[in-house]
Amino acid sequence: MPFGYHTQHSPFGAFASFTIGLPQSRGGMGQSLSGPADQDVFAGYRRLESDGLAGGNWNLLPFYKEPEVPAAAAYTSEFAEDEADMDTPRMLDAEEVQRELGWASDRWSHAEFSLTLYSPFGRTESPESMSEDAARLAFAPVIQAEVSFDNREGKAAVELVFGLGHAAYQFRPLEDEVTDLVGFALGREMGFAARPSDVERRLQALSIFYPKACTDHRGLHLLGPEAAVVFRVEAGEQKRFPVSLGFYQSGVVSAGLTASYFYTKLFDGLESVLQHGLAQHAHYREQAEARDAQLKSATWLNADQQWLIAQATHSYWGSTELLWDESRNEALWVVNEGEYRMINTFDLTIDHLFFELEWQPWAVKNTLELFVQRYSFEDNLNVSEGVDPTGGISFVHDMGVMDQFTLPGRSSYECMHITGCFSQMTMEQLINWICCAGTYALATKDKAWLEAQRATFIACAQSLLRRDHPVPVKRTGLLKFDSDRCGPDGAEITTYDSLDVSLGQARNNLYISVKAYAAWSLLEKVFAEAQLDESDWAAEAQAATDRAASAVVSKFESDSGMFPAVFEDGNRSRILPAIEGLVFPSYLGFVEELRARHGELFDKLGLHMQNALKSGICLDARTGAWKLSSTSKNSWFSKIAIAQHVLRTVFPELEVDVEAGAPADAVHARMQKTAIIGQYAMVDQVNVTDVLSLGSRYYPRIVTSFLWMREGNI
Amino acid sequence: MPFGYHTQHSPFGAFASFTIGLPQSRGGMGQSLSGPADQDVFAGYRRLESDGLAGGNWNLLPFYKEPEVPAAAAYTSEFAEDEADMDTPRMLDAEEVQRELGWASDRWSHAEFSLTLYSPFGRTESPESMSEDAARLAFAPVIQAEVSFDNREGKAAVELVFGLGHAAYQFRPLEDEVTDLVGFALGREMGFAARPSDVERRLQALSIFYPKACTDHRGLHLLGPEAAVVFRVEAGEQKRFPVSLGFYQSGVVSAGLTASYFYTKLFDGLESVLQHGLAQHAHYREQAEARDAQLKSATWLNADQQWLIAQATHSYWGSTELLWDESRNEALWVVNEGEYRMINTFDLTIDHLFFELEWQPWAVKNTLELFVQRYSFEDNLNVSEGVDPTGGISFVHDMGVMDQFTLPGRSSYECMHITGCFSQMTMEQLINWICCAGTYALATKDKAWLEAQRATFIACAQSLLRRDHPVPVKRTGLLKFDSDRCGPDGAEITTYDSLDVSLGQARNNLYISVKAYAAWSLLEKVFAEAQLDESDWAAEAQAATDRAASAVVSKFESDSGMFPAVFEDGNRSRILPAIEGLVFPSYLGFVEELRARHGELFDKLGLHMQNALKSGICLDARTGAWKLSSTSKNSWFSKIAIAQHVLRTVFPELEVDVEAGAPADAVHARMQKTAIIGQYAMVDQVNVTDVLSLGSRYYPRIVTSFLWMREGNI
Repeated sequence: MPFGYHTQHSPFGAFASFTIGLPQSRGGMGQSLSGPADQDVFAGYRRLESDGLAGGNWNLLPFYKEPEVPAAAAYTSEFAEDEADMDTPRMLDAEEVQRELGWASDRWSHAEFSLTLYSPFGRTESPESMSEDAARLAFAPVIQAEVSFDNREGKAAVELVFGLGHAAYQFRPLEDEVTDLVGFALGREMGFAARPSDVERRLQALSIFYPKACTDHRGLHLLGPEAAVVFRVEAGEQKRFPVSLGFYQSGVVSAGLTASYFYTKLFDGLESVLQHGLAQHAHYREQAEARDAQLKSATWLNADQQWLIAQATHSYWGSTELLWDESRNEALWVVNEGEYRMINTFDLTIDHLFFELEWQPWAVKNTLELFVQRYSFEDNLNVSEGVDPTGGISFVHDMGVMDQFTLPGRSSYECMHITGCFSQMTMEQLINWICCAGTYALATKDKAWLEAQRATFIACAQSLLRRDHPVPVKRTGLLKFDSDRCGPDGAEITTYDSLDVSLGQARNNLYISVKAYAAWSLLEKVFAEAQLDESDWAAEAQAATDRAASAVVSKFESDSGMFPAVFEDGNRSRILPAIEGLVFPSYLGFVEELRARHGELFDKLGLHMQNALKSGICLDARTGAWKLSSTSKNSWFSKIAIAQHVLRTVFPELEVDVEAGAPADAVHARMQKTAIIGQYAMVDQVNVTDVLSLGSRYYPRIVTSFLWMREGNI
Repeated sequence: MPFGYHTQHSPFGAFASFTIGLPQSRGGMGQSLSGPADQDVFAGYRRLESDGLAGGNWNLLPFYKEPEVPAAAAYTSEFAEDEADMDTPRMLDAEEVQRELGWASDRWSHAEFSLTLYSPFGRTESPESMSEDAARLAFAPVIQAEVSFDNREGKAAVELVFGLGHAAYQFRPLEDEVTDLVGFALGREMGFAARPSDVERRLQALSIFYPKACTDHRGLHLLGPEAAVVFRVEAGEQKRFPVSLGFYQSGVVSAGLTASYFYTKLFDGLESVLQHGLAQHAHYREQAEARDAQLKSATWLNADQQWLIAQATHSYWGSTELLWDESRNEALWVVNEGEYRMINTFDLTIDHLFFELEWQPWAVKNTLELFVQRYSFEDNLNVSEGVDPTGGISFVHDMGVMDQFTLPGRSSYECMHITGCFSQMTMEQLINWICCAGTYALATKDKAWLEAQRATFIACAQSLLRRDHPVPVKRTGLLKFDSDRCGPDGAEITTYDSLDVSLGQARNNLYISVKAYAAWSLLEKVFAEAQLDESDWAAEAQAATDRAASAVVSKFESDSGMFPAVFEDGNRSRILPAIEGLVFPSYLGFVEELRARHGELFDKLGLHMQNALKSGICLDARTGAWKLSSTSKNSWFSKIAIAQHVLRTVFPELEVDVEAGAPADAVHARMQKTAIIGQYAMVDQVNVTDVLSLGSRYYPRIVTSFLWMREGNI
């Protein structure tokens, strides 16, 4: 099984990535793509002869494809390129190259050469409230590269190269527009640049590494889809050279809502972005190094866990998009759903919550408000005749797809009349708003916001109650009525849409039931907050929490020592997300209060996990990976990460199979590093039996692994 | 050899095409592409049962690919689509479908169904001088489709469908933004729409033709990359339904010069374009029908010639781009070089001249002025020591590539130190400016412009003289000195860059020599015009014309009865563009004056053509196609068209091989209709021996065939 993986290197909120890392593969700069771009990346070095002039062959990192047909063939037809004259660069074997992925950096080294990419991040405040200087630092659509060589022991000069090829069209030299950048751009949209004082020469041609390539009076060929900058390190010197990689999309980029990239308010074009990047290179490098050190200092995590966090974080940033709503004149936060590019899919928002609360809590608030203002609705329920069908508030699955916002109250995903993938997720998204909003409000102590959302919290509580049963006395603590948005013949599903029915069906579902329990526990806290002081609702919520706890407890199977996944039809699947809902009270620090009230629930959930985490049940019998469902090969890394975190923090005393610990981490990391999965950077849905990528590629959601960073003081 | 071909259907100046026609292939809407887009086009019909409800299978034109994997697989992983439930549409065999390509229309018919595309054009005035209404009609980035069915004999209703699939991302329903359009768009960039009153229903899904496709409350699935509108024709009715296909690129789209599409001054977005298209459908259809009739009325042309003109014109429009220079606040005309996308390649401009003088003469002027203002330069010549090397004015090969304008005085194509493809074209472009500007001024009688260009005409004459020899007494009538832009080791080439040396080398080249002769003859006329009244220069030009004529005559080989292609090294290649230069005096109506002065030249050129146009020389021995050079299989359809026109108009008495006439036209049309060439719409460079596309695909230049329309009164 070949190993190697792509990693996305992405600015904050630019929906853009420089993707690189899978040996013998293309990647490079991509804007709004569903997967890696298709550019060659040229980075490497060559040693010059001792006279410092003629050079040996280039040694290049293996991030390009060797062309089958010379690029000139398209123009010259009858002219054959003289193969003997091709001083072909040597593509380094992946095995010769050391790679180290940090939280905000990625470095490849070969002999004295190295290429490092920095995609730093830090805590930000709301774009509306930041100073322009701070905003430019935080939101510049740029990432940093650095090529370096330690030639202190060398006897002759070396040349270093950084460039791109196989571009969608021809590069333009930045020097045609500005004097303080040397590098190349594709139109006004993307490009790379170095400092003129660093650059020995620059290359552009149909094939830059062919010594006989045609060039013009300044050594360039503007028809060239390959372009690079070349640096020089004299014998006895050690040098590193910054390169900035910038993106720029001007004007309105969305439909449905009228929005532009926020960075267009800070930078007037690609050149400004690149100038900023080079000027701030040291700042960005230091910020990246600080993040790298922070991850390394999490000594309670093994190397596999640290790698998973690093890789997941990189892919998260690649899906982020900070827009400015031109109509409402305010920031508009979007996380795109990886390869699917759906906008702010709510069942991803809830999972990104923990990471975003640390780094950009304003983004959580922004999305929650848009869900209330534009993407909430009121429904009826599919109840039997004679029962009041009024449902209540809920929220749609997503806000659209590919920068196309849907109409108010509608998603791009949800369909009618079906019972599987693409059905409605009304219960789940209602719970998601409660958990997301409750966690935001309680964690940030944003009291004004809490007060402003009073009516929504109450509406949510009402809606949640009615989905148990419209008739109060008939409430059992379980959600059992589907939205009429399903149609009479459809059924609600959960975020686990493409897993088997054990997690797919929403009604009477263990995962949903525990998550609803958690939602009620949050509502108790929210209503009890001084700003709301809704004591009646707090009492109602308390009763509902207790009811939910009892209802779940009653479903425990004493014979197997586990819960069934669905409380219907004799289902005997076992699922690890049984405990997922506990992540919210755990995060907010009141899980012990709940355990004190509902000891039996916690005991039984612990027992469930202990019994499920065995080989052949929820540990894959072949690979040892965690399986979310005992009856599906399809496992989701984002959700494994939550289950692991809850297990370790809420059930630390549990004696689970040792294979479920560090050995499983190693299995998980290794899977993501296989080429078949790693070609898509971070992948969420993996067939963990046969090791295949099933979907959710190039995906942000696995940033749930950031929760592990909080485990240091267990 | 499989037959079939794509045709570009393009608005005026939008650098966009709806490409369709090659059986079992994708095409569809493409913006700024180097070849056809990659969308499925769904167009067809199904007969309903006599109850008017349930329907049989769809019959679709063969302009899509049947999917190997259902689109839903990307989302659902473990869910297998039930193959048995797929009510798969029937893809019509190409043989069952009648196709008729007109000058501005394209129609496919099957039984009572037809799909027609209209891409009309008419004569336009300068964008600056047109009324807004006229400009909107002329420059709207929209083309028209029409689906129709004659159900007068039918016993039950039929449904008609028009849609697209395999889009780069998901469609958005236009009805979300406006009430008077039903259709779909991709972002803000492109889309199709019908009138709400015409549309029975609309489809959007992962797979619109699968009856079990998931859809939402309004019957759409917004995650669908397939979308369509459905019309209904009752039994006894005959109906046709217009569909508009629009493009829109907002904001600045270029680098180097800062320019936007001119249509953005006329329409505020895609929806406005589509509303306009539907409102003006009848106007556009009538305009297209008038063009079709005009071509058909050219009864002196056989059906193959008419088809070649029609197909060539379609590809020409696809490369046109009408911009607005935001800095200079004026129109900026661009023709992109087909698959190469170079901007205003001068050796294409000169060939588009005749078409553009008929339909948009202001565009010729616009480009000529930009060549003077930004893309002219002065050079030195590679002369022997002791000779004054001063050259003079000339012009670069192109203005950049892919909306990236080069620096003043520089092209994207031309390199130094080489003798083949990508070398300098200084002599040729100097001649091109003279011929293009002279023809424009004399044909349009634009006296103010002629006066304004006085200095440039004089500078061109001086430059042309010096390229014969800097020392007046040493002038022989042939251009023999390369520009120092070649470097000391390079050599100038001609537009025939990728043909063999018989046409590639500029010095002492038969093609260039006759074209220079023509240029001098134009300069005689220009300087003699009353506005300039440069009698000294007119006399100088007259002498130079005579000198050029004598020089060419002296190179005639009496043994072969032909000219050599290059007057050096015993070259014995034979070339048909020997007479290309005569197109200008012929077009301007003074070729008989020249024949009277230089009878021997005309006689010998005629003899040359008569002898060259024989099988095995310049008629391909295998296929019968015209070969531009006896020593190359690579022949260019744009240049064949000019040679044919000059032969028929300047040498009508010539008795050439009958195979060079209508049989060759049939060969040429048939070649362009083979799938291997026709997949790229119109192709210029064809290996006419083996029938392969060598380059210059999706190419505008073959619009030279428009010259044939002028042959009616021979």
